[in-house]
Amino acid sequence: MKYKIAVIPGDGIGREVVDEGVKLLKLISKIYGDIDFTLEYFDYGCDYYVKHGVMMEEDGLEKLSQFDAIYLGAVGNNIVSDDISLRGLLLKIRQGFDQYVNLRPIKLLKGVDSIVKNKSQNEINMIFVRENSEGEYIGTGSHMFKGSDRELVIQDSVFTRYGCERIIRYAFEIAKNSNKTLTSISKANALNYSMVFWDNIFNELKEEYPEVETHSYLVDAATIVMLENPEKLEVVVSSNLFGDILTDLGAAIAGGIGLAAGANINPERKYPSMFEPIHGSAPDIAGDNIANPIAAIWSVSQMMDFFGREDIGADILKAIEYLIEEGTHLPRDMGGNAKTGEVGDRLCYHLKNIVKM
Amino acid sequence: MKYKIAVIPGDGIGREVVDEGVKLLKLISKIYGDIDFTLEYFDYGCDYYVKHGVMMEEDGLEKLSQFDAIYLGAVGNNIVSDDISLRGLLLKIRQGFDQYVNLRPIKLLKGVDSIVKNKSQNEINMIFVRENSEGEYIGTGSHMFKGSDRELVIQDSVFTRYGCERIIRYAFEIAKNSNKTLTSISKANALNYSMVFWDNIFNELKEEYPEVETHSYLVDAATIVMLENPEKLEVVVSSNLFGDILTDLGAAIAGGIGLAAGANINPERKYPSMFEPIHGSAPDIAGDNIANPIAAIWSVSQMMDFFGREDIGADILKAIEYLIEEGTHLPRDMGGNAKTGEVGDRLCYHLKNIVKM
Ligand SMILES: CC(C)[C@H](C(=O)O)[C@@H](O)C(=O)O
Ligand SMILES: CC(C)[C@H](C(=O)O)[C@@H](O)C(=O)O
Repeated sequence: MKYKIAVIPGDGIGREVVDEGVKLLKLISKIYGDIDFTLEYFDYGCDYYVKHGVMMEEDGLEKLSQFDAIYLGAVGNNIVSDDISLRGLLLKIRQGFDQYVNLRPIKLLKGVDSIVKNKSQNEINMIFVRENSEGEYIGTGSHMFKGSDRELVIQDSVFTRYGCERIIRYAFEIAKNSNKTLTSISKANALNYSMVFWDNIFNELKEEYPEVETHSYLVDAATIVMLENPEKLEVVVSSNLFGDILTDLGAAIAGGIGLAAGANINPERKYPSMFEPIHGSAPDIAGDNIANPIAAIWSVSQMMDFFGREDIGADILKAIEYLIEEGTHLPRDMGGNAKTGEVGDRLCYHLKNIVKM
Repeated sequence: MKYKIAVIPGDGIGREVVDEGVKLLKLISKIYGDIDFTLEYFDYGCDYYVKHGVMMEEDGLEKLSQFDAIYLGAVGNNIVSDDISLRGLLLKIRQGFDQYVNLRPIKLLKGVDSIVKNKSQNEINMIFVRENSEGEYIGTGSHMFKGSDRELVIQDSVFTRYGCERIIRYAFEIAKNSNKTLTSISKANALNYSMVFWDNIFNELKEEYPEVETHSYLVDAATIVMLENPEKLEVVVSSNLFGDILTDLGAAIAGGIGLAAGANINPERKYPSMFEPIHGSAPDIAGDNIANPIAAIWSVSQMMDFFGREDIGADILKAIEYLIEEGTHLPRDMGGNAKTGEVGDRLCYHLKNIVKM
């Protein structure tokens, strides 16, 4: 099979880590034989904005729609304000391509120490299913009485039945097919429209999946569960903002943000899905070649899963675990001093060996 | 000085832990000599709701307004839905009495082990200043096309200049007077009205406080900072929802929710302020007398600070530290087997000794 991949390195360390992911993609087509990729680069990002006044071309989404997947580095720099750069590129793609599922594994890999005491590999192993198309991130609102004492803004959170049902159903399907429990994140005691609605739909769908064991936590309490009893969480479904917050916390308990990957999926495959490390562009270390490429490479593993090649996805994770257990080629944030490119090369080396075996 | 305190034990373990706080209040008036309290009980809560169809009397706020402070246990049970019980009592008091400052210390006490690796007492020592009157909790919104496929809800987040300025200013004053840094929590890259506005006001006020060192973190990144570098956080100011989430996380890193207290303050003293443990009513263990009363007692310490008696507030914290270091009278969630009442009695014992010294 041949897949067309749009590569958007973006800004800062996004470019450095994407280089390593691309190395891996090239290696994969070489060593597996039955899969191939054509890559096309897009220079969208903050530099593009500085030159053209927009984060991507006007027909950018149309161009990208021709691809099977998008591989994104990171977006943002110190010049363009974040609400412009992210809304103009990352969120625009997520929402424009109806990538309504944001899938984020939170898994303590072999060889990785959690910052939380006494946690073992099998206790930190969950998958977050984050709503990715509406909710708190819908982006509408109003700004009144500007500059006066009674100035105020209203930010809308829009939760549709359509949007809630499909994401919660998607999570139920994962839980059912993998024989895992499903936990919903809520805050109905304070958010009397959005989260009451969310809970109602969750409870409705429960009826359709009597075989799935379900739980529900308030978002604040969920932070405590993630630290004290992460083994209670298997498949987790949440709104856009809650998923954003809890998956960063998840990254922190599973080895740090340098390891955390995310897939933005349009399950109907009407539009391309997008794969990215969940870390940002880190302008402070950009250009130093010390960024950790593992998250970007983990997101290539997610891309392979999405293409139906779970075998390759699993091999990549194995290569990452070999690299970490070996310990000789770790990036700075993991206590080593390997350059970004050296980490990527070593991962390629391990993947080659795994395929040879 | 004589203070009138309204006691609302509320539901579940709220009643058990408030009993211990009241023991302490009675002891305080006896051993300090120059301070006294009159207590009046209010049976507002879920049982009240079941009997009367409302969480508190119609003129409840008016009655409570006669007091110098409110001492609250916890609200909520398994029968009344949370959005009714909390909006009808806890949030009603916070908003009705314009308790716009929610002050939450996150402090690793002597003798307490953090669940996070390698963290010492002086690294986890921050004070959260949470907006408590508006923002994401304003409670307005709409529900459209009920029961149809296009059903949707909108939850409003309302941020006023008035509300943002006063809470951020309050936090700047604390930072300035205690010579600490101030960190603002944001999410302007996704919340393009509320958090852009919040950031702008924070930046405006910075000009008025050139002596205060400031920082800003996105709420998702802040969860990582709290685990990896809590020493970076001293005074923290945040919106209502973000403060809710991060202070529960804070409780988890500082010994658990059984130790976390909060003060809901109306700084102008036009209305009474309210003091409460931040844990919930825990229906699952209610009645077993195993709840940890330390959070409720820490909130008495905050009440003393608020009355200008920081000396008594500090003595109470010292008594808690003695109890924990001693280790013989710890409640179940701290690894001991003392009953709620035994923990309270032992704290009274330590406070007596501290005052005698
Ligand atoms: C950059 C930002 C808009 C984004 C988000 O909040 O979704 C990021 O934090 C993430 O989690 O992918
Ligand atoms: C009970 C709930 C409404 C409340 C809140 O979210 O404010 C609680 O979690 C808290 O933090 O005091």
